[in-house]
Amino acid sequence: MLVQGVCNSVINITDLNQLKWYLNNLQPFDVGEYITHLPEKQRAIAFRLLNKNQAIDVFEYLPHKVQGELINSLHDVQVAQIVEEMSPDERVILFDELPAKVVKRLLRELSPEQRQVTATILGYPEGTAGRLMTTEYVRLQQGLTVGEALSKIRYQDEDKETIYYAYVTDENRKLFSVISLRQLLFTFPDVFVGNVASNRVIKVSTETSQEEAAQVMKRYDLIALPVVDREDRLVGIITIDDVFDILEEEATEDIQKLAGISGDEAALASPQVTVRKRLPWLLCNIFLYITAASVIAPFQKIITVVPVLAIIMPILANSSGNVAFQVLSVTVRGLGVGEITPKDTMKLLRKELLAGLGIACGLGLALTTLSMIWSPPDDRWISFIAGSVMIVNVLIAVILGTLLPMGFKRLKLDPALISGPLMTTTLDAIGFLTFLSMISVMLKIVD
Amino acid sequence: MLVQGVCNSVINITDLNQLKWYLNNLQPFDVGEYITHLPEKQRAIAFRLLNKNQAIDVFEYLPHKVQGELINSLHDVQVAQIVEEMSPDERVILFDELPAKVVKRLLRELSPEQRQVTATILGYPEGTAGRLMTTEYVRLQQGLTVGEALSKIRYQDEDKETIYYAYVTDENRKLFSVISLRQLLFTFPDVFVGNVASNRVIKVSTETSQEEAAQVMKRYDLIALPVVDREDRLVGIITIDDVFDILEEEATEDIQKLAGISGDEAALASPQVTVRKRLPWLLCNIFLYITAASVIAPFQKIITVVPVLAIIMPILANSSGNVAFQVLSVTVRGLGVGEITPKDTMKLLRKELLAGLGIACGLGLALTTLSMIWSPPDDRWISFIAGSVMIVNVLIAVILGTLLPMGFKRLKLDPALISGPLMTTTLDAIGFLTFLSMISVMLKIVD
Repeated sequence: MLVQGVCNSVINITDLNQLKWYLNNLQPFDVGEYITHLPEKQRAIAFRLLNKNQAIDVFEYLPHKVQGELINSLHDVQVAQIVEEMSPDERVILFDELPAKVVKRLLRELSPEQRQVTATILGYPEGTAGRLMTTEYVRLQQGLTVGEALSKIRYQDEDKETIYYAYVTDENRKLFSVISLRQLLFTFPDVFVGNVASNRVIKVSTETSQEEAAQVMKRYDLIALPVVDREDRLVGIITIDDVFDILEEEATEDIQKLAGISGDEAALASPQVTVRKRLPWLLCNIFLYITAASVIAPFQKIITVVPVLAIIMPILANSSGNVAFQVLSVTVRGLGVGEITPKDTMKLLRKELLAGLGIACGLGLALTTLSMIWSPPDDRWISFIAGSVMIVNVLIAVILGTLLPMGFKRLKLDPALISGPLMTTTLDAIGFLTFLSMISVMLKIVD
Repeated sequence: MLVQGVCNSVINITDLNQLKWYLNNLQPFDVGEYITHLPEKQRAIAFRLLNKNQAIDVFEYLPHKVQGELINSLHDVQVAQIVEEMSPDERVILFDELPAKVVKRLLRELSPEQRQVTATILGYPEGTAGRLMTTEYVRLQQGLTVGEALSKIRYQDEDKETIYYAYVTDENRKLFSVISLRQLLFTFPDVFVGNVASNRVIKVSTETSQEEAAQVMKRYDLIALPVVDREDRLVGIITIDDVFDILEEEATEDIQKLAGISGDEAALASPQVTVRKRLPWLLCNIFLYITAASVIAPFQKIITVVPVLAIIMPILANSSGNVAFQVLSVTVRGLGVGEITPKDTMKLLRKELLAGLGIACGLGLALTTLSMIWSPPDDRWISFIAGSVMIVNVLIAVILGTLLPMGFKRLKLDPALISGPLMTTTLDAIGFLTFLSMISVMLKIVD
């Protein structure tokens, strides 16, 4: 790859002056990576080598944990400067992570303007568009000409997060229309902005969930999305860089929930957090599994007579569990990216049942053939029953794996809550029960 | 949500004129959704109601399958017009899906300029940055002033895919520097572009993988990324809308591979495709599982003596399988989004082992306690052995779930290839073997 400024080249430099020169000339992202990978004690030293503008840029790329550390170990003046210059949305994310006492101190040190903006955003609940937005957008009055609008952008709006869209409002900030910088550039300067701006503004409310806002931006290929309050007044915009993070977090959550982890766990979370996010699911599952296994308990005698069942049963459980996992992952992910909606339930079920039938027959045949190896010669019929139960169980797996997430979605619950582990436990119970009762009926007939 | 133009409102309109008015005034994405959800025969009728510009915009939002259908059912003139006006990268994606004969015909009807551009992009292998890029970017010569550059953009570059970045090259198209439209607007008109443009250009080569290009754009918050050939000549740019799709596909692939599905399967793929993507894994797994189960076969006698083992074994298998799935999903996803790299192996392993110890003890205790329920009163010791094997097995699950994907990543293989199903099969074999051999040793001692 041809990305410039790979940070590996810096790590071996021991001359501080040379390091300073390097750190101030690399991409902020790469400097952030470099500082994050330093031992904790050296981070503040390296960070102090950055000149003011680079320091502000680099700071926004650091993980929140490292940001918090630096806030504690840098001089108050430098901290105040950095926090003042951060974009409001990034600042709010940082404040969410810091102890309340530190936040109070930092808020006090902000300029009145930035303090008010920060307090406003902090007022919206976590996970909403209001909490994600930035207030640094370009706002135009309706009466401006294109030429006036362009000069306004050129001479007044240098610190806006994006200047590629401008929003036209009345004096009460009620949002009327949107115009891209591109349109402004391609229009004659004496035309009124109101005459060329588009009235079909795609917007979300402060209460819209972040996931929904991200999906809207993806769907309409937007690089900024206006956020309005209940009175339709423009209060902020969401920019594309935030959307990447949201979509990525959402995918991570889908994967982790499917695997039976609650919430989104960072790969390098502390062991305590890890146990807290994983163990409850596992314990809940083992209790359920014991209930499922109690299905086997009454059949213990049959197992004494035909111990080969103890070999076949785990295979049965394992296979139908795997099928369920496959169906679940396709359905949950399809719903997650908007590829399918609950309206497609019947279409999806038909496809999954047809495919499931093929898969079920394949697996049933394989199990029948292979289990012949251990079946006692007189009990070949056991293999056939194993094969048939496999077919039935796989079809049940397909139906549950399709209908449960679709049903959850329709009830406006998170479809990823149907985690794989719970699903496999249910399927095991059904499989064992069917298999063992068929065997016991057959044994009576054979006797 | 406040998105305008929800397509549901259109569906009940029966008056064609009214429908035409609606379809030409809705967002192209929504019209695309509407047409996609129409019965196949009505799609071309609805599409013909669109005026030229709307038709071109809507076409790019349609699924490739529907695009192909429309190409067959619209008039040749209209098809030629749409295909000519598509952005080159979208056109190439469409051509990939169409039969070679149709592509040949369409290529013949393109303007010479567009034909050459398309042929160039088609020349790069699938999955590379070269195949993803568009050739509609703004290129500036080094000698221009900022004012001249702005007029060039305003009066010549109306059909470029993005005008928010301009790339400075020499006459051989060798890429020198990049300047954003924002910088151009904020600089005095008589300054030379070469003096303000940034030399630290982040770029990728035509051979870079699309995933890598997407990660680069995400990392550096870019809305366009230049693509250069081996001689460092600028050949195209990748725009942000393509990156969303790539990152989303990548996450889908991770989820599906973890669940044991090869390649990325669309939620509404045909049953044949579905079987082809899923059955091989399942069959491979059942064969492996039979091998694993053959571990049990020699112990059949013990099961006859202590049938409670047949209950405990599936619980053991199920739990360690679930733990492995959790660890795998966190590691694979962490690698996928760049949260961790193979360098973090020891750090991750330490965290997972510590967390794993907590989880193992919790599960071991639960199994010991609960399995007492079925153990014959003389054989309480079986429960303790079950609990200890659980602890060992969970720790093995943690180690494999961490080290295998990390090792694969280090070997430059896809870590998601360590699918959950194969992992659980391995763990089952290890667990059964440990458990049954310990039991058989103990039985001899007890006897």
